[in-house]
Amino acid sequence: MSSDSLSSAEEDVENEQSVGLLSNVMEARAEHLKTRNYRSLYSFTTALGIGALVMILSWLIRYRKGFAWNWDPELQFNWHPLLMTTGLLFLYAQSILIYRTGRNASKKRLKIFHAVLHASAFVLAVIGLKAVFDSHNYASPPKPNLYSLHSWFGLVTVIMFTGQVTVALLPPEITLKYFLYPGLSRSLRQAVLPVHTVTGIATFTLALIAALTGITEKTIWT
Amino acid sequence: MSSDSLSSAEEDVENEQSVGLLSNVMEARAEHLKTRNYRSLYSFTTALGIGALVMILSWLIRYRKGFAWNWDPELQFNWHPLLMTTGLLFLYAQSILIYRTGRNASKKRLKIFHAVLHASAFVLAVIGLKAVFDSHNYASPPKPNLYSLHSWFGLVTVIMFTGQVTVALLPPEITLKYFLYPGLSRSLRQAVLPVHTVTGIATFTLALIAALTGITEKTIWT
Repeated sequence: MSSDSLSSAEEDVENEQSVGLLSNVMEARAEHLKTRNYRSLYSFTTALGIGALVMILSWLIRYRKGFAWNWDPELQFNWHPLLMTTGLLFLYAQSILIYRTGRNASKKRLKIFHAVLHASAFVLAVIGLKAVFDSHNYASPPKPNLYSLHSWFGLVTVIMFTGQVTVALLPPEITLKYFLYPGLSRSLRQAVLPVHTVTGIATFTLALIAALTGITEKTIWT
Repeated sequence: MSSDSLSSAEEDVENEQSVGLLSNVMEARAEHLKTRNYRSLYSFTTALGIGALVMILSWLIRYRKGFAWNWDPELQFNWHPLLMTTGLLFLYAQSILIYRTGRNASKKRLKIFHAVLHASAFVLAVIGLKAVFDSHNYASPPKPNLYSLHSWFGLVTVIMFTGQVTVALLPPEITLKYFLYPGLSRSLRQAVLPVHTVTGIATFTLALIAALTGITEKTIWT
């Protein structure tokens, strides 16, 4: 390469730098607007979510006689809609959005939040499932399990959710090294991420369908 | 710019061309694989869709006593699940996918197919809605309309779908010039397209939820 072409290359770099500076300013503005839009949308949908949970809670307390455990199967059932929607819709949604909501926090902290929110959702879902199976099995006469569209959508949802949690947790030494903490296998994490997010959003959609078919069932049956 | 830097620019262009050739071959291979994957997935989901329609049809004929119009409101209802799922799920899905399914056809032809499939879905939906309202109003005693979760999800779906069709059709001279045929306002079409696709997919998801809550209602009520 001749020195002439080098100097012209330097000119190009200078031009690029001034263009780059302008485009940086424009990008920062665009980023700022996108963040502000996200915050408005996030606040709005989270308020809707809390509103839905409050309405479910007041429905169960005021119109469905509140809560109990397996000494009263009819009231034990009431834990089911409350815990499933709190876990597999509200906490699940918050957990999915955490990387965007807390975009200025460290990646490691966000991953821990994501894991804690998902683990809480999982625990609520397990108690919620126990509640519905108990409420069928301890009823007199006992009610059959898993014969409706809702129950199968719900079962598939829980199996897929458990699968995602299992992949994240087992074996723990690999998870801690490779997924939860920034470890060696960047390529592995890069390959798994899109599968994890697509499966996660599909599972969330299934949870939404399960909730709406479930509420439809309950409003007709009572 | 000096002539030396020009010749170095020519060299760059040559290098880019040979790199470009290689990347063209790789891109063509990747495209081919993606197309083949799409075709498999499309065939599989379309077969599932036809299977679902056949199951709905045999359910309505064998277990729900078949079809009639408003001289027999109970059988008139049966048009509702058949026409809504055929129109707002099967044809709607085919119409959304047409640009990918027929990717080698001309854009103009695909737009006409998209319009015809969506128009057919709209006509089936209108007849399906007439069927359900008639089946309530002509029943003795008449049944109330629009008091369930399903009915309101369905209503919102149909309103959003009608909105999309209306935007595409009114005023017709503008549509024909600017949307259906390649016309002058490329920038307008570019601005509308992402809104149209996101709204369309949201409406499709609502149609799916409406169908599943509707089937849940019908299996409990009969």
